[in-house]
Amino acid sequence: MAAHTLDDLPTPALILDRAVLRRNLKRMSERLRAAGIALRPHLKTAKSVQIGRMAVEGHDGRITVSTLAEARYFAAGGFKDILYGVGIVPAKLPAITEIRRQGVNLRVVTDNLAVARAIAEAARDGDTFSVFIEIDSGGGRAGLPFPELPGLLDIARVLHSAPNVELAGVMTHAGHSYHQNTPEGIAAVAEQERKAIVTAAETLRAAGIPCPIVSGGSTPTATWSKDFSGITEMRPGVYVFNDLDQALIGSCKPEDLALSVLASVIGHYPHRNQMLVDAGALALSKDVSAQEFQPNVGYGTIADAPSKDMAVIECSQEHGFVSSADPMPYGNMPVGTRVRILPNHACITAAAYDKYYVIDSDLDGGKSVVDVYDRINGW
Amino acid sequence: MAAHTLDDLPTPALILDRAVLRRNLKRMSERLRAAGIALRPHLKTAKSVQIGRMAVEGHDGRITVSTLAEARYFAAGGFKDILYGVGIVPAKLPAITEIRRQGVNLRVVTDNLAVARAIAEAARDGDTFSVFIEIDSGGGRAGLPFPELPGLLDIARVLHSAPNVELAGVMTHAGHSYHQNTPEGIAAVAEQERKAIVTAAETLRAAGIPCPIVSGGSTPTATWSKDFSGITEMRPGVYVFNDLDQALIGSCKPEDLALSVLASVIGHYPHRNQMLVDAGALALSKDVSAQEFQPNVGYGTIADAPSKDMAVIECSQEHGFVSSADPMPYGNMPVGTRVRILPNHACITAAAYDKYYVIDSDLDGGKSVVDVYDRINGW
Repeated sequence: MAAHTLDDLPTPALILDRAVLRRNLKRMSERLRAAGIALRPHLKTAKSVQIGRMAVEGHDGRITVSTLAEARYFAAGGFKDILYGVGIVPAKLPAITEIRRQGVNLRVVTDNLAVARAIAEAARDGDTFSVFIEIDSGGGRAGLPFPELPGLLDIARVLHSAPNVELAGVMTHAGHSYHQNTPEGIAAVAEQERKAIVTAAETLRAAGIPCPIVSGGSTPTATWSKDFSGITEMRPGVYVFNDLDQALIGSCKPEDLALSVLASVIGHYPHRNQMLVDAGALALSKDVSAQEFQPNVGYGTIADAPSKDMAVIECSQEHGFVSSADPMPYGNMPVGTRVRILPNHACITAAAYDKYYVIDSDLDGGKSVVDVYDRINGW
Repeated sequence: MAAHTLDDLPTPALILDRAVLRRNLKRMSERLRAAGIALRPHLKTAKSVQIGRMAVEGHDGRITVSTLAEARYFAAGGFKDILYGVGIVPAKLPAITEIRRQGVNLRVVTDNLAVARAIAEAARDGDTFSVFIEIDSGGGRAGLPFPELPGLLDIARVLHSAPNVELAGVMTHAGHSYHQNTPEGIAAVAEQERKAIVTAAETLRAAGIPCPIVSGGSTPTATWSKDFSGITEMRPGVYVFNDLDQALIGSCKPEDLALSVLASVIGHYPHRNQMLVDAGALALSKDVSAQEFQPNVGYGTIADAPSKDMAVIECSQEHGFVSSADPMPYGNMPVGTRVRILPNHACITAAAYDKYYVIDSDLDGGKSVVDVYDRINGW
């Protein structure tokens, strides 16, 4: 490795603090193990085999992915039980089969009767499939909306009766937990999530259809749920890194943010109390989720900032506009100064990078680059 | 090439209509040639050698880039006059030198006296540099603010007097043109842009300092400027593809959008008049620039939509939420149906992909994939 410290790295660069990562992984792993729940981490956030292996330590190795590119990559990395968590379409079934033939239980998701029939049809020639039915527990994204669960039994019967098709279970993602910012608010969403999938599972079982896996999961609900009864696995994702959004909604503490973007100051603009850095819309993303609860986090805040509320307040493609509530400390931050920007939404920020430069704040305060982890982007 | 038509491609995928691209390139090329202005296209949008070569046809081959990765890639592709248009920092000078030693005139930009001195210092050992001074013509991003131009002569004298350093000229980007949506409004910004850089150039010349290049440019101002007097080159970027934002501000017509994202319908949600597609925040970006002038374009509109105002109205990482003003035509759009989404802001959307699948609407209505162009992402 040519680069040995943060000062040697090109900017912008994606920095991962392994000490914080390990604490985040351990906290979630222990919480779910104590609750007797399987952990199926959603690796759409990390997209890295190295991090995936650390995430499943002490668990049985099941994971979730968000793209076929991730499915292929993690399959090649030795993962054997992979849930592709985005609604499947018939045209993607041959790609699923190709990966399943490698001995990987790559499972798919649907909430659509025509798709269930297409899967049953595709399985006629001997290819096997493992399918989850998606439930909308209140987030309003994918899934059969609870409590109506329209068509649940129709879809389940098609899958259950098809040769070579396993109805693996039901799953949901309680995305609305991201819009709560108290433990009580999140726990209430977690209970909605639980009730939706447990009800769906019981509906299937009452009709004589097995439903082995009952899968919930989001970082907030996995963190604050008070009752996992009936749930068999959880699929949190962003907890591996955390971010400003998770800190503001209370899924983590400020010191739990493992990811940052290293950037260089490229200009001083005292007439408007701003600096520019070389991390803009592509390096940070234009995701502003965390602004829902604290608008002045902008596109990311400056770690260990020498001035109050220093943040990236605007972005163009390769320029980040940095300002603070106090006068900007230009004398202490000449052009070329390196800053670390804490991401607004880690999953989206990380997607601009093909690798992590890994530091370890427990070793030397995080000065040295101790490893490089790869990432799989694209589709 | 395994895939021959749009129906064979994986989704999401980035689709480029070569016929539209060529018309966009020709229009700008001819406009600037007629005005006697050099074209230095900003290839931060296309990030593709194939498109870069087409863009400079009939011109002298000078280009602009936004990252060192682009600089290396276009240098390897045979481009010899490259402006790296993001403020340089001293730590990046060795990378500049490495590329310049390959016989490429890679030029840099600054607006900072300390950086000018660092460049002069770095040039002492015989390495040469070509430097632009950046001017803020009213956009409020980088550059010495006009009309004060604070420190212009100090920076210019440091560069001009340094051995092995060429003061190449002055440059600006009139980013505020993106917030106008009439030809007259954009022309007024173009005149501010012109006045700022021409005044800066004249100030240098009056002090006995040569200023050979006077560089302006944005797609809107290059399109609607009424007077280029004193400007020697323009650096438009997004005109190669155009997007909803450019169409709404009037830099192009709706039929000039060359880029789209191919996506699959993955679910039907009639209880909220929505569908989901497999193109979300990563496939489309969370850039919503065009919403300034038309909020209902969302994160991108559906091309040739069968229903009024059909657009991606919300995004999570891999899910796009599609709705329309009319009831959604579920019967005509079963799960698996492919749609093309017109990007809100092409530069940011394209950055998620490592290649373009090229179609040609003049050949067969755009059904066949006729070529694949690569892209250089990252830094």
